[in-house]
Amino acid sequence: MEGYGRFLALLASALLAGFVSVIFSLVWVFHYREGLSWDGSAREFNWHPVLVVTGFVFIQGIAIIVYRLPWTWKCSKLLMKFIHAGLNTIAMILAIVSMVAVFEYHNARNIPNMYSLHSWIGLAAVIFYSLQLFLGFAVFLLPFAPVPLRAAFMPIHVYLGLTIFATVIATALMGITEKLIFSLKNPAYSASPPEATLVNCLGLLLVIFGALILWMASRPHWKRPPEENAKLLQPIGETPEGTEAESTMTDGSNADKSDLRTNSEAARKQNLKLDEAGQRSTM
Amino acid sequence: MEGYGRFLALLASALLAGFVSVIFSLVWVFHYREGLSWDGSAREFNWHPVLVVTGFVFIQGIAIIVYRLPWTWKCSKLLMKFIHAGLNTIAMILAIVSMVAVFEYHNARNIPNMYSLHSWIGLAAVIFYSLQLFLGFAVFLLPFAPVPLRAAFMPIHVYLGLTIFATVIATALMGITEKLIFSLKNPAYSASPPEATLVNCLGLLLVIFGALILWMASRPHWKRPPEENAKLLQPIGETPEGTEAESTMTDGSNADKSDLRTNSEAARKQNLKLDEAGQRSTM
Repeated sequence: MEGYGRFLALLASALLAGFVSVIFSLVWVFHYREGLSWDGSAREFNWHPVLVVTGFVFIQGIAIIVYRLPWTWKCSKLLMKFIHAGLNTIAMILAIVSMVAVFEYHNARNIPNMYSLHSWIGLAAVIFYSLQLFLGFAVFLLPFAPVPLRAAFMPIHVYLGLTIFATVIATALMGITEKLIFSLKNPAYSASPPEATLVNCLGLLLVIFGALILWMASRPHWKRPPEENAKLLQPIGETPEGTEAESTMTDGSNADKSDLRTNSEAARKQNLKLDEAGQRSTM
Repeated sequence: MEGYGRFLALLASALLAGFVSVIFSLVWVFHYREGLSWDGSAREFNWHPVLVVTGFVFIQGIAIIVYRLPWTWKCSKLLMKFIHAGLNTIAMILAIVSMVAVFEYHNARNIPNMYSLHSWIGLAAVIFYSLQLFLGFAVFLLPFAPVPLRAAFMPIHVYLGLTIFATVIATALMGITEKLIFSLKNPAYSASPPEATLVNCLGLLLVIFGALILWMASRPHWKRPPEENAKLLQPIGETPEGTEAESTMTDGSNADKSDLRTNSEAARKQNLKLDEAGQRSTM
């Protein structure tokens, strides 16, 4: 891997930022708020920031870059797809539970639901995320989708994944803003009490975590190398370096090259044949 | 241009979303708030959302995709660089004026400055944006930077540009959240008065505008074709189609191919010679 040391340093920074974010969210709810429980009280609401930071930001971020960890390149692509889908499924479940916590808290206190921009964009993000997971499963994990469909869907899958991830972080920042304004009264948010400083720093950490994940996910030279059968199917004269140049943030940060290589009709037909035979690792 | 119709449809949608966002920000301050003036009152604050939406979101978004408009491909790269830098300069000035409006409003009312997450991330975005503009000017417009430096800086420039753009939209969403909570009292934000619905829709439009710009900026086949001299310098056997595959969201949505082509030592040296002679369009 080119720039292995730099990749490791960025990965360590991202893990640190993500890990400290989770710690900050726990310090927030346990030290400054009422802690956690599931009883319709403010303690139930507190699951919302903890689960969003842990699942919808941190685990989603790791799911995005999991194909790029060089020590996974020995593992089969199928296994990596299951890990990618599995992490995203965990993140989705935590995001849904985090929403249920807010709805139950609101209902217990007769606070209206779904009035704020935070709730509008947050709900849209969860819906798009679930749709993305369902379509990703149907197109890339199940063996039914033809190769041209996979190739056509891959750039959309990658773009949607990164855009939803950025939107989730933006929504978390709105949520932090709302919660600090509503809950800090004496002293108010504008007086910058220690809780406000801690939670502002949590927001900054989320932005740094997101920026690091987006950088790592979009370097073409850190992409998982093509599968062996994809290498064999390479058109004559196309070097592995040449194909690596195809890798774009938008064309497949988590794409198997064999999903994408459709520019050679012969290779495409051979892929289709392998598809039918169930020989490709993507099945 | 491949997919010209689709590009035009997306461009029209982005322009519509951006234009309606500006209209919504004006309706907000003129119909629901006190209008605009420069006297330390709430009317001075109102410049903040109007200038951010117009300059820091809409104009910045257009600046990002200006190289991709196919009817500009006949224009020299130098002219396009000036337009790109010029639009970004206008956006930066409007962003700074919008911040001054808030500081003056706060100071006139003895409201503390820089306590909220919105203000922290907003100020960081303006600083990074100004730095990005300054470095972009020094590296890509002035004739002093050597080609290897330009090639090394280009992916960082593109990544930073898109990340700052996304961060600016996230900051605007936080600002909308803050302002609606602070200013809607009777009825409150939670009662969803018409003003809240209008401004929530403004927030949604900003997200849609951002998503459209990021999609257009990251399609490799919509990249400005390489300059004539870059074509001449192409290593033998590398087709224009092959080089187009190099285009990534991260490697140069606004890069002249001649800035990037360093894989051939001969081409690099020739570029350097052209640099010295001031013959390249990027000077």
